Amino acid sequence: MSLKGKDLLGLYNLSKAEIHETLKTAVTMKDILNKKVKEVPTLKGKTVINLFYEPSTRTKSSFSLAAKTLGANVMSISKSDSSIVKGESLLDTAKTMEVMGADLVVVRHSAPGAAKFLADNIAASVINAGDGAHAHPTQALLDIYSIQEKLGQVAGLKILIIGDIAHSRVARSNIWGLKKLGAQVAVAGPQTLIPPAIEKMGVKVYTDLDQALENVDVVNILRIQLERQASGLFPSLREYRKIYGINAKRLKKLGNKAIILHPGPINRGIEIESSVADSSQSVITEQVKNGVAVRMALLYLLAGRENKNENFN
Amino acid sequence: MSLKGKDLLGLYNLSKAEIHETLKTAVTMKDILNKKVKEVPTLKGKTVINLFYEPSTRTKSSFSLAAKTLGANVMSISKSDSSIVKGESLLDTAKTMEVMGADLVVVRHSAPGAAKFLADNIAASVINAGDGAHAHPTQALLDIYSIQEKLGQVAGLKILIIGDIAHSRVARSNIWGLKKLGAQVAVAGPQTLIPPAIEKMGVKVYTDLDQALENVDVVNILRIQLERQASGLFPSLREYRKIYGINAKRLKKLGNKAIILHPGPINRGIEIESSVADSSQSVITEQVKNGVAVRMALLYLLAGRENKNENFN
Amino acid sequence: MSLKGKDLLGLYNLSKAEIHETLKTAVTMKDILNKKVKEVPTLKGKTVINLFYEPSTRTKSSFSLAAKTLGANVMSISKSDSSIVKGESLLDTAKTMEVMGADLVVVRHSAPGAAKFLADNIAASVINAGDGAHAHPTQALLDIYSIQEKLGQVAGLKILIIGDIAHSRVARSNIWGLKKLGAQVAVAGPQTLIPPAIEKMGVKVYTDLDQALENVDVVNILRIQLERQASGLFPSLREYRKIYGINAKRLKKLGNKAIILHPGPINRGIEIESSVADSSQSVITEQVKNGVAVRMALLYLLAGRENKNENFN
Repeated sequence: MSLKGKDLLGLYNLSKAEIHETLKTAVTMKDILNKKVKEVPTLKGKTVINLFYEPSTRTKSSFSLAAKTLGANVMSISKSDSSIVKGESLLDTAKTMEVMGADLVVVRHSAPGAAKFLADNIAASVINAGDGAHAHPTQALLDIYSIQEKLGQVAGLKILIIGDIAHSRVARSNIWGLKKLGAQVAVAGPQTLIPPAIEKMGVKVYTDLDQALENVDVVNILRIQLERQASGLFPSLREYRKIYGINAKRLKKLGNKAIILHPGPINRGIEIESSVADSSQSVITEQVKNGVAVRMALLYLLAGRENKNENFN
Repeated sequence: MSLKGKDLLGLYNLSKAEIHETLKTAVTMKDILNKKVKEVPTLKGKTVINLFYEPSTRTKSSFSLAAKTLGANVMSISKSDSSIVKGESLLDTAKTMEVMGADLVVVRHSAPGAAKFLADNIAASVINAGDGAHAHPTQALLDIYSIQEKLGQVAGLKILIIGDIAHSRVARSNIWGLKKLGAQVAVAGPQTLIPPAIEKMGVKVYTDLDQALENVDVVNILRIQLERQASGLFPSLREYRKIYGINAKRLKKLGNKAIILHPGPINRGIEIESSVADSSQSVITEQVKNGVAVRMALLYLLAGRENKNENFN
Repeated sequence: MSLKGKDLLGLYNLSKAEIHETLKTAVTMKDILNKKVKEVPTLKGKTVINLFYEPSTRTKSSFSLAAKTLGANVMSISKSDSSIVKGESLLDTAKTMEVMGADLVVVRHSAPGAAKFLADNIAASVINAGDGAHAHPTQALLDIYSIQEKLGQVAGLKILIIGDIAHSRVARSNIWGLKKLGAQVAVAGPQTLIPPAIEKMGVKVYTDLDQALENVDVVNILRIQLERQASGLFPSLREYRKIYGINAKRLKKLGNKAIILHPGPINRGIEIESSVADSSQSVITEQVKNGVAVRMALLYLLAGRENKNENFN
């Protein structure tokens, strides 16, 4: 059992069957996290390196825990570390990691394409943990996992992504994955923050949130990047909250079957009201656990390339 | 064998019997550290998260080593990490940690009550590793362990704590624990730095150190917080050293049966003279090892809630 | 099987036989890294502490991986950590680490002699991971290992070290080790950056690089410390590249049997041209892996002092 390629760069690389395989494997992994199934050190003897050029608590911790739970050695290199500061090239750093015995490099970088560049140049498996505004496939997979777990399936659902779509790798990866699995995807946000080409991908675009919310099964709320406020493209926080924030009233409009996702960390009172974040329809907290499960699945399936005899199931 | 509550917030939460249970368990743990007894991975499969909003080398390292020695997965999140920087609330961060599978969260925070707030809101066990000037129970337990190890018992001893009592969570927790075990506790320090209410707790207050030192069995010297100098409440370092510093002459006055404690890191030549810190009566270095042993005991006793069949002894 | 002393402070401490023992042990360790030989947790139950007062990615990661691969507990303390910031003395910090159960302390510090100072004052083994301009023995051992692996032996070879010799602990340790094993060592670099006394150590000095390159078997290129540019001792980067940079033309002059070493991280286009760094004669990437193997060997041989019955071979 394994994925076909050696890397996970974006959901455009995975077939529908591979996505389903990953989701299915993640179910077992979640049982391990929930201590229903005993932990098996399938990655024992493997070394996973987290190479994070952008700050991250949640994604880095999630990968660390996923790898440690499967018995791997884990090492984290952050942009504050010295070789990176000294200006060593991304490739030289990665080659260093590889010869140190890395079987798998998890990389986050502000440059779109950084993960692919690495993957093309080192033999170790590369997982893209976010490259600029390009892709964040493990976030999308955990979102999809969360939807499937709550609603049984993804195909046929109407899913709305709200926020700064133009700069969001989370949005982009979700769209790729969700379309592949047969969902209807729509986006809502300020016109300046929605790329015009998105409609050609078969995504419906709304600037009126209240209209967009009709008949929606899943709302995925993007985090407002407060540091982008200065760009001039963005409305004020006050306006944003009013026009695009999900509050109790809008939750009611959605009906009680719809679920609420957010990649975190949330800005309470801006893109999401506390009462919504903490409501029974919110899957936000569960997404974090699903993230560990999905990353365990991916680590297992990618490292599984070599250990064909050590099947997990 | 376990503690009654799920958390350790302060020594006021523990009964006298629970404190004795912890101290007794720590004796076995110290034998493990001294390699007299073989290490048993009683926390295997458990995840301990260090959530440190204030800098710390000693306490964080001590908890890490304690948890790793018992076989737990350990993850450390510091205030420089990104979600914390991004302004995620303490509770949202902790919930994230919890759903990532944390069985035990060790928290240090500048706000008094932060540990209790967490404990009330998450299912994982919480250990207070210092919350503002409120409490630092694991430091107090390791101090008490060190006294008992050296002098056989705590009940009936006269113990003097010297320094900035008003701002010290170490002093506060020591007082709670020591009184509970039947010690006589006194404090000495500049009048501006001793809370008036402390006498109502049955603690004797001295501003004249030389008078305070008479018939004392244990001196616990608090670290001078150099950053507090600007507050105006504090005498100059030179004055402080003269009036409250423990030097060779004062050590002699104490007699050769008294022992010297300090939570570290020490300011040599300020609150304690080098000759005192390095004397045979100083327990300061041993306190560090006792800290690991006591934290192992607490991790074991708190995690023991669930693994009732995996008794350590 | 073990080294005679408890510490590794510099190659001047090791006998020729001990260096050969280390290199031989590193061969087995490299087989473990290459998964030809199964990993054996010979350091299980041991605690290794990385105490880094200067920034480092490569050396710190290398020691971490080496120690983890052998099953040790690893803890890293960096200069940004709080006790160090709070001004605790090096010795007090190290004693703290020791009583926390450190069996081995790996130390990097800007002060020459810092490692020896620690070694004289704590019972744990100390490995010098670089102390000012004094010594960097593990780097020299990995360089020597790399030469021996590629060229069969070190005795009788002509080895040229290029760069800022005066401030380089890498150069100094290489010279000690290489001379001991019977190599001919020469250095080349700007006159202001070569200590006059070096000729008395039996090292040939060149300021004309093209003359120096004749009949050389191994070129070890030092990293230009960009931060030293301001000192006035250094030529401009442009001049340096022209006069001392190794480019395709100079590589050709060396002949195709010579090999190229660099401790990394490399400044592409300054002290080494990309075509040279990436050529088949470059051993730079392999040096990184050899570094892990050599450090595994040293950890094993130093920790082997106590576990005489747990021989690795």
